[in-house]
Amino acid sequence: MPPKTAGDTTKERILDAAFDTLVEDGITGASARAIAAHGEFNQALIFYHFGSVRDLLIATLERSSQIQVERYRERIEGITDLGDMVHVAAALHAEDMERGSITMVAQLMAGAASDPEMGEAVVKAFQPWIDLVERALRQVFAGSPIEAFLPYPDMAYGISSLFLGLELLSKLDPDHEQEERIFSMMNMVSGMLENVIAGKPLLG
Amino acid sequence: MPPKTAGDTTKERILDAAFDTLVEDGITGASARAIAAHGEFNQALIFYHFGSVRDLLIATLERSSQIQVERYRERIEGITDLGDMVHVAAALHAEDMERGSITMVAQLMAGAASDPEMGEAVVKAFQPWIDLVERALRQVFAGSPIEAFLPYPDMAYGISSLFLGLELLSKLDPDHEQEERIFSMMNMVSGMLENVIAGKPLLG
Repeated sequence: MPPKTAGDTTKERILDAAFDTLVEDGITGASARAIAAHGEFNQALIFYHFGSVRDLLIATLERSSQIQVERYRERIEGITDLGDMVHVAAALHAEDMERGSITMVAQLMAGAASDPEMGEAVVKAFQPWIDLVERALRQVFAGSPIEAFLPYPDMAYGISSLFLGLELLSKLDPDHEQEERIFSMMNMVSGMLENVIAGKPLLG
Repeated sequence: MPPKTAGDTTKERILDAAFDTLVEDGITGASARAIAAHGEFNQALIFYHFGSVRDLLIATLERSSQIQVERYRERIEGITDLGDMVHVAAALHAEDMERGSITMVAQLMAGAASDPEMGEAVVKAFQPWIDLVERALRQVFAGSPIEAFLPYPDMAYGISSLFLGLELLSKLDPDHEQEERIFSMMNMVSGMLENVIAGKPLLG
């Protein structure tokens, strides 16, 4: 790894400010002026280092996704039952809510509605998350009688969509109460599913 | 119903233009100038009739939600099995994709990240959709052995989140191929669930 130069430090600071601005003010508030105010630097630095606000936002997404995917990969490693998967998903989701990483993705997705180039970047950055969910599902269902019948990529796409939607909705629900209840519901459903997979009655 | 006045017609035209602008250009593109250009009227009319762009967007959401919820209510009436529910959901979702109604809601949700007042309006407009999903779920599970164990409001919230997330993601996926596969997956899962509910083996 090359030693950090002053340029790296400035870039990091701009990336951090862009992340915070997206999380706190959303895509509609992520102007050069707002980002510079968040990071307490001159907005000309954004254009000097990243060319445009759009390119800065894409770079912010790419950096955040890389970090997240690495973190997810470690936590998913070794999970083989559905109940554990729901627990890990709930824990990761709570951490993401805290950090704001999914908020940022959801905001950029909304912004991409009018910007196909950003749309491509978002899809590219989001795909590794979907792939991780798929990997976790394959681990969980390995050896079960329905293993061969499950459309893993579609399930992973559906689960990723569910998390995105939950994120958008729960942002508007200040106490996040509903969201916690969703995870206890998933817990219950995964318990039922495990009973079914094991050939036991639905409710244990 | 009172007869239409010239004022109503102008307001309708502004509402239609705001809807189209949100669907085509997203929340970041929904400026007074863009909306006026879409509807080919003077942007001063927006401020005269609605006070602000934000209030116009909220009025657009309220009108669209009212129309949608009415349409959904009619279609959900009488559904009593899970397979039919998935079919109706897929059909309604395809229509919404075509019209852009969920896109509009997702865009306003993203915009609400930096605007608590819009957030409240979005939550209020979205709640009747969640309520309808809950009603459909109660119809489908009425009389089943697990009827009393299901957390209907949480399930409805989860399903609504899934649809929102699917909408955001599939907007970025130009051929909507993945989305169709999601519905065939739901079909498969609902078939399995019905087998389980009826006490038959998982795969019929």
